[in-house]
Amino acid sequence: MESKTGGGSASEPATMILHNAVIVTMDSDSRVFQNGAVFIDQDKIKAIGQSSEILRQFSALAHHIVDLRGQILLPGFVNTHVHTSQQLGRGIADDVDLMTWLHHRIWPYESNMTEEDSYISTLLCGIELIRSGVTCFAEAGGQHVNGMARAVELLGLRACLTESIMDSGEGLPASWGIRTTDECLQSQKKLYEKHNNTADGRIRIWLGIRQVMNSTDGLLLETRNAARELKTGIHMHVAEIPFENQLVMETRKVDHGTVTFLDKIDFLQENLLAAHTVWVNDAEIDLLSRAGVKVSHCPASAMRMLGFARIREMLNAGVTVSLGTDGAPSNNRMSIVDEMYLASLINKGREVYAKGTTDPTALPAETVLKMATINGAKSVLWDNEIGSLEIGKKADMVVVNPFSWSMVPIHDCISNLVYCMRTENIVSVMCNGRWIMKGKKILNVDEEEVISLAKEASSKLLKRAGIKIPSRMNVV
Amino acid sequence: MESKTGGGSASEPATMILHNAVIVTMDSDSRVFQNGAVFIDQDKIKAIGQSSEILRQFSALAHHIVDLRGQILLPGFVNTHVHTSQQLGRGIADDVDLMTWLHHRIWPYESNMTEEDSYISTLLCGIELIRSGVTCFAEAGGQHVNGMARAVELLGLRACLTESIMDSGEGLPASWGIRTTDECLQSQKKLYEKHNNTADGRIRIWLGIRQVMNSTDGLLLETRNAARELKTGIHMHVAEIPFENQLVMETRKVDHGTVTFLDKIDFLQENLLAAHTVWVNDAEIDLLSRAGVKVSHCPASAMRMLGFARIREMLNAGVTVSLGTDGAPSNNRMSIVDEMYLASLINKGREVYAKGTTDPTALPAETVLKMATINGAKSVLWDNEIGSLEIGKKADMVVVNPFSWSMVPIHDCISNLVYCMRTENIVSVMCNGRWIMKGKKILNVDEEEVISLAKEASSKLLKRAGIKIPSRMNVV
Repeated sequence: MESKTGGGSASEPATMILHNAVIVTMDSDSRVFQNGAVFIDQDKIKAIGQSSEILRQFSALAHHIVDLRGQILLPGFVNTHVHTSQQLGRGIADDVDLMTWLHHRIWPYESNMTEEDSYISTLLCGIELIRSGVTCFAEAGGQHVNGMARAVELLGLRACLTESIMDSGEGLPASWGIRTTDECLQSQKKLYEKHNNTADGRIRIWLGIRQVMNSTDGLLLETRNAARELKTGIHMHVAEIPFENQLVMETRKVDHGTVTFLDKIDFLQENLLAAHTVWVNDAEIDLLSRAGVKVSHCPASAMRMLGFARIREMLNAGVTVSLGTDGAPSNNRMSIVDEMYLASLINKGREVYAKGTTDPTALPAETVLKMATINGAKSVLWDNEIGSLEIGKKADMVVVNPFSWSMVPIHDCISNLVYCMRTENIVSVMCNGRWIMKGKKILNVDEEEVISLAKEASSKLLKRAGIKIPSRMNVV
Repeated sequence: MESKTGGGSASEPATMILHNAVIVTMDSDSRVFQNGAVFIDQDKIKAIGQSSEILRQFSALAHHIVDLRGQILLPGFVNTHVHTSQQLGRGIADDVDLMTWLHHRIWPYESNMTEEDSYISTLLCGIELIRSGVTCFAEAGGQHVNGMARAVELLGLRACLTESIMDSGEGLPASWGIRTTDECLQSQKKLYEKHNNTADGRIRIWLGIRQVMNSTDGLLLETRNAARELKTGIHMHVAEIPFENQLVMETRKVDHGTVTFLDKIDFLQENLLAAHTVWVNDAEIDLLSRAGVKVSHCPASAMRMLGFARIREMLNAGVTVSLGTDGAPSNNRMSIVDEMYLASLINKGREVYAKGTTDPTALPAETVLKMATINGAKSVLWDNEIGSLEIGKKADMVVVNPFSWSMVPIHDCISNLVYCMRTENIVSVMCNGRWIMKGKKILNVDEEEVISLAKEASSKLLKRAGIKIPSRMNVV
């Protein structure tokens, strides 16, 4: 299948200078070079600074010298919560209540998915991720990690892949069966052995917990221990809906919700990536902060399905909050560019319920940009190598053309990146020192072919799963 | 200046068949033709139906026959609240409090604007409107209607243009001076005589009321009377912030806010387009509904600056609600495509504050699509000619390519139009029977030239106005 979707050979990594760019480094000094350059050697940034200086020092060593003509160079965005295997299910569960969403659309869809479906779904999702400037993502948990890994390797992206893990819970599709705690762990350890640190180090394997209602205490604790042993992270949906907290209070005997319970069993730790985390009280925000838990805020999906996460309060408490798109049937745009715009708007608006008026100063552009870059890198435990443009870090970066109708005039470059930029403005994307999109062309897969494979696979999958979408209008 | 920005001659209107399209008519039967066609004669739709039937009947009469290859044909979107003259000020007032926004950014900006600035700003804004599928817009009120009209005529758009009208109020820039009530009316009547029904009938002149805090009772009543006499509409910002309602209660002696007051003076009527209308109670929603007032919901701007409008309640009460982008310094994307996505998400999320959980069934895709099309047309009092694709209506339409990465797979076409579509998917736009964008190329102005003019004009304007934007990062 790889041969079928091969869209041309990726450019070989080499030494390269990118100069004459506005470089938004996202380093700890928030440096922006008005006319900056980077010198890249293989997969790493070897130097960064003023264009004139970099050109003077490194021109003789560079195989390629690229003039970015004043365009903006940013660290690649990190999407910290995305269900790549749900891309084929975009549009299957819009405008329906949560129970219909889960029982009649998503579970039938996921339980009828093959590894090949997951491969195609990840390819399609990957195209959207790249086009929205993402170079690294955290998979939220799917059934076929082998399929995902194959797609990620081909696309040239960086990813933390995770299996969807449940060892209990009610109402699950019969075909799934419930795995034992031990089977859950063994399966993930096998995936870890097979895929961790493959694809030139671009793929890492994380451990998954679908959510507390599908986990025994044993699974939670053994997952925590296994993550310590493997030195990897845990990706889990946390405190998504009021019902979850209520059930946890009743069955797990705690006085608030999931976060309180996870603290009680000593599960909260620095390598936990908690997705959504909408329904938390002040005490729980404090617990998250003290434990160094990372939170993935998914604005679109939260607004549609879950509620308004307390992002300002979490940021104020020192929690590392990053951005995610969630899966296609929950959003449905898989664009971190749009999530930046939404994060800023929603969290300004939400203040109305606390203060009586919105607060246009909440979550300013620079904070949102941080969430999408360095906070994303911290959330996936990879900030020693990605999330900012600095000497020694991986060359994961995005070229933005701000000179088109959607971003002009540019009075405030940082603000325009968050409020005006659209996927259309992203022209080139590099991951691990290789271009994976150049001049708006996806390089490693044949985009048309992926779309055509996806169309066919998704139709078959819906038929197999018996999912029927009622017509909204009068089709004649 | 027109000659400078002339981007090529617009196609002459003629007879034309567009066939092999999914036609979402938005007519009162919500008909969707799976393989449909329209026959266009000059500026009007003469026939609509199955492709085979239209081709059989009208091929001999058609100068052009265009195969849309399964793409989607929609009525042009109507943006019912946009400040075209604020486009040059995009990014000048992000992440600042409301008083800074108004006193130190927007008022200095608007009061230093020339007619030429307004012309250029409208051209730039118009490009963004066309690229997001808008064929008709309602100007929210600006200083230089002559400049706007010149730009609209050139762009080929349809518009209801409005002067920004105030005859009282505190803290306004000295350079503006306050006009008398009579001057306000005379100025608008002059504009009406000069521009109404010009540009092949594409331009209409409306009357403006900036907002209640800048209007005497006399201005409100004379505007109402003048609108009746001229048979035109009134565009007014209504109930934007809690402070406004409070001030109205104190100074106008009513027991709630602006809507209650406007009802008391018999101002509410079918030709009032009330922008935002965020802070209204149940009784006021009832007043709006009974009077037939139209509401322009601007999701992005409301979330950022104003609060959550009670859209579900208004729709349930039978109020005609449409969509607007507001102005660039309040949003900053001027895309009705994004506003559709936002309207659906925000209004699902807002339910959490009423019910304890979000309601993913609130404002379904078909409702949102209606808001952007036929409700938009009703809001600008033009639904006898636009807002749906029907025999006898104007040929204002949009061609959407749904086959790219951002919209596939298509399990639910209507839902994908609202949740997945981006400006990138809009390939061609026709207004009044003429293509104004074709194959993503804006036809009537030279886009590059407009961008370059806008860059220059906006820099000069900010300098003149003494507006300085502090740097958010450490520029080196």
